[in-house]
Amino acid sequence: MRVSILGVGLIGGSIGLAARAKVQGAHVTGFGRSPERLERARALGAIDEAAASLDDAVASADVCFCCAPVGALTEQVSGALGAAGPECVVSDVGSTKAGLVAAVDDPRFVGGHPLAGAETAGVENARADLFAGATWYLTPTSSTAGVGYERLHRLISAFGALPAAIDADTHDRLLAGVSHLPHVLANVLVSHTAEAVAREGETLPATGPSFRDATRVAGANSEMWTDIYLANREALIGGIDDTVARLQRVREALASADAGAITGWNDAAAADRRTLLEGHLTGGPVHELRVSVPNRPGVIAELALELGRAGINIVDMALHPAPDNSEGLVALWIGGDESADRAAELVAGLGHPVARA
Amino acid sequence: MRVSILGVGLIGGSIGLAARAKVQGAHVTGFGRSPERLERARALGAIDEAAASLDDAVASADVCFCCAPVGALTEQVSGALGAAGPECVVSDVGSTKAGLVAAVDDPRFVGGHPLAGAETAGVENARADLFAGATWYLTPTSSTAGVGYERLHRLISAFGALPAAIDADTHDRLLAGVSHLPHVLANVLVSHTAEAVAREGETLPATGPSFRDATRVAGANSEMWTDIYLANREALIGGIDDTVARLQRVREALASADAGAITGWNDAAAADRRTLLEGHLTGGPVHELRVSVPNRPGVIAELALELGRAGINIVDMALHPAPDNSEGLVALWIGGDESADRAAELVAGLGHPVARA
Repeated sequence: MRVSILGVGLIGGSIGLAARAKVQGAHVTGFGRSPERLERARALGAIDEAAASLDDAVASADVCFCCAPVGALTEQVSGALGAAGPECVVSDVGSTKAGLVAAVDDPRFVGGHPLAGAETAGVENARADLFAGATWYLTPTSSTAGVGYERLHRLISAFGALPAAIDADTHDRLLAGVSHLPHVLANVLVSHTAEAVAREGETLPATGPSFRDATRVAGANSEMWTDIYLANREALIGGIDDTVARLQRVREALASADAGAITGWNDAAAADRRTLLEGHLTGGPVHELRVSVPNRPGVIAELALELGRAGINIVDMALHPAPDNSEGLVALWIGGDESADRAAELVAGLGHPVARA
Repeated sequence: MRVSILGVGLIGGSIGLAARAKVQGAHVTGFGRSPERLERARALGAIDEAAASLDDAVASADVCFCCAPVGALTEQVSGALGAAGPECVVSDVGSTKAGLVAAVDDPRFVGGHPLAGAETAGVENARADLFAGATWYLTPTSSTAGVGYERLHRLISAFGALPAAIDADTHDRLLAGVSHLPHVLANVLVSHTAEAVAREGETLPATGPSFRDATRVAGANSEMWTDIYLANREALIGGIDDTVARLQRVREALASADAGAITGWNDAAAADRRTLLEGHLTGGPVHELRVSVPNRPGVIAELALELGRAGINIVDMALHPAPDNSEGLVALWIGGDESADRAAELVAGLGHPVARA
């Protein structure tokens, strides 16, 4: 498999290392604006070969990963699609998805976002196991080619990642809550406290974990985060407004010294935290489901999104087109007894015959 | 030294274990409402002896620690002061200080707050090293007896804690920013995200550290935290109002897609975080300062507060009254060359002769 990587930093470099370490016969070609960084990536073993241009890097690729900063992704993805062959699947690793997915309408494109490695940068920190156990969101649409999606899914599974299909808008709202809003709150808290500490003429005490934990991500790399905040500003503004409304309610309960309201609010937070963490548990044996699907655009995206919405972890997948290309068989490997039962129901609900292997 | 502990849970039990392990000749007497828990504390070695009443526990004590929940502290401290002898020093371990310190006017009382062990409860989790390296705030006032303050300071230093003198109001505003507001934000964030995740029909992704770190303390034990939130509600409301104002400013920058403002705000947070963490660094050799002080009420509190405000870590202290009790010599051990120089200046600035040993 020929893998092309545009932008060989932490994420791009780790993709290269993972492909070379975990995929037999993988050949990785890299391209980036800085010849020095590209050569460093080659010296570190993240790529087999440095291309002289984007076109050279992408022309014969089976899979192309666009790893530019969020603000430059639309242009990079368009360039890659212009240079890529008809069977290539082009993906990206940006932290926000709706804008990009709306701007790119090509069956060869699948938006992606691995939840790994945002904190540090540079190919020097790249690791072949960066994605091991990490959720890797994919945002197929109804026009996404099933064969490209399947290839991408299998490749990132080989990296050790957990692919999860999700609608691009849902992804952005979810990430606003899970990542972007926590960053905003960390920034606000650290600056509030720095001012308060300075005003009191004190120093930060050797606190317990709450303050350090809450502010660890404060002031993350502006070069990356200004783009992310702006690209996801609609969802983030919604999150800020909801946060402010919640803070006002706590303030009222405090101002009226309402112990019952404070206890109720705090207990609800404890329950919410439990629900979030438990919803994430998986486990149990892996089951194979075989699904017959018509060979029409969007059918793989539908399947992946339906199972993704239900929180079902597709451990692996394989697509076998019929010789006449009129229909296909998708094998899905699902982790956990209950998840496999539920997945079979959901797939049947979409109208596709499904069998247990 | 006879140590009395009222309320033998995690903190009280750890004080008992630390005193028995680290102070030669310490004898620890405990009292609490539940005879079963008291017996468990004795069986675990946290106390030498279970007293039959508060009066019995405190009558012959040199140091008494009041470890009731914040809401019950004023009553417990008053009871302890009523039962204690004239030379006893009575302290507490509550997370908020201004209300208690204002309610108790007794030279034998010194408010205290060790920054350790808030997360779990019960004497079963008590440890002799719970306070090792932890800031332990003390809130002396102008009426605090120096001899009692010194005994307490030396005792908690022996536990491995870092005593830091601080004004009670300042303590509460500082803790609002460093601990109580982070808890409020964790609660708000976890509930916001739980609702968002449920509304989208998704599950929490296996995220990077930001969300888990930011919400680790969400929904902390209501029995303890409702009291803390209410006892410190004035400072906490101030913190919430400032947070809301900061969130509104971020919201405006996002709504107008002002990349410069977002970058400036994010860079400021990075600088604030650096300042906070650097302000906390100490190190270097320990120096002894010998300070001559008049034997009048409040002089030790003044010294301790002056150095505490400057962020100077008093590693240890010893008070030597002159035979006629008209004045005294305080030995102060200060960590770090610069801190020792600064401490000498500050002490001289208060009008006390100071010498380097």
